[in-house]
Amino acid sequence: MDTSPLDRSLLLDFYGELLTEKQRVTCDLHWNEDLSLAEIAEQNGLTRQGVWDILRRAEAALREYEAKTGLVGRFLERREAIAGIRKDLAALLPDDERSRDILARLEELT
Amino acid sequence: MDTSPLDRSLLLDFYGELLTEKQRVTCDLHWNEDLSLAEIAEQNGLTRQGVWDILRRAEAALREYEAKTGLVGRFLERREAIAGIRKDLAALLPDDERSRDILARLEELT
Repeated sequence: MDTSPLDRSLLLDFYGELLTEKQRVTCDLHWNEDLSLAEIAEQNGLTRQGVWDILRRAEAALREYEAKTGLVGRFLERREAIAGIRKDLAALLPDDERSRDILARLEELT
Repeated sequence: MDTSPLDRSLLLDFYGELLTEKQRVTCDLHWNEDLSLAEIAEQNGLTRQGVWDILRRAEAALREYEAKTGLVGRFLERREAIAGIRKDLAALLPDDERSRDILARLEELT
């Protein structure tokens, strides 16, 4: 599978519920839980090749959703904008409790 | 069509590219451009009932995407959090150019 600026876990987080359950679970085990193809195959009575095919098709579907809607890209742009605002604010605000609270709330959004 | 806390235009903005072109265009004309069913019907050689059916199915599909992924809801929550931060900051920051710049950048995100 190719590397990409868009993290596969993020694509799965956004569009995973649009996949079949088998696809979603397989992607989660491999991409998030870091199980190997062989481990997933053994747990599910599949071949390594079968697991590979599920992952390949699921990733293609996720990338297709992103190509159409661009929602992950938009999310990342907004997140970057918030991080930039937070950085500028950190240099501007006094070091008191209200300021720290606001910076923490911005941090949560990034 | 029912009213809903989730604006139909926002659903169309998020998931419109997952509809058929006919559905997307019809929704845009009715929800965003405010054309009547009769006007859309006449432009496209359809009956009013035909236009209504397209809208009804498109809205159901959009709501199904939202029910599965919850992405519009998440977006609205984040937007509300940003608006709250902006409000607190406006009361905290001095009235100078750097502050106004930061508040304007936060405003853009809401």
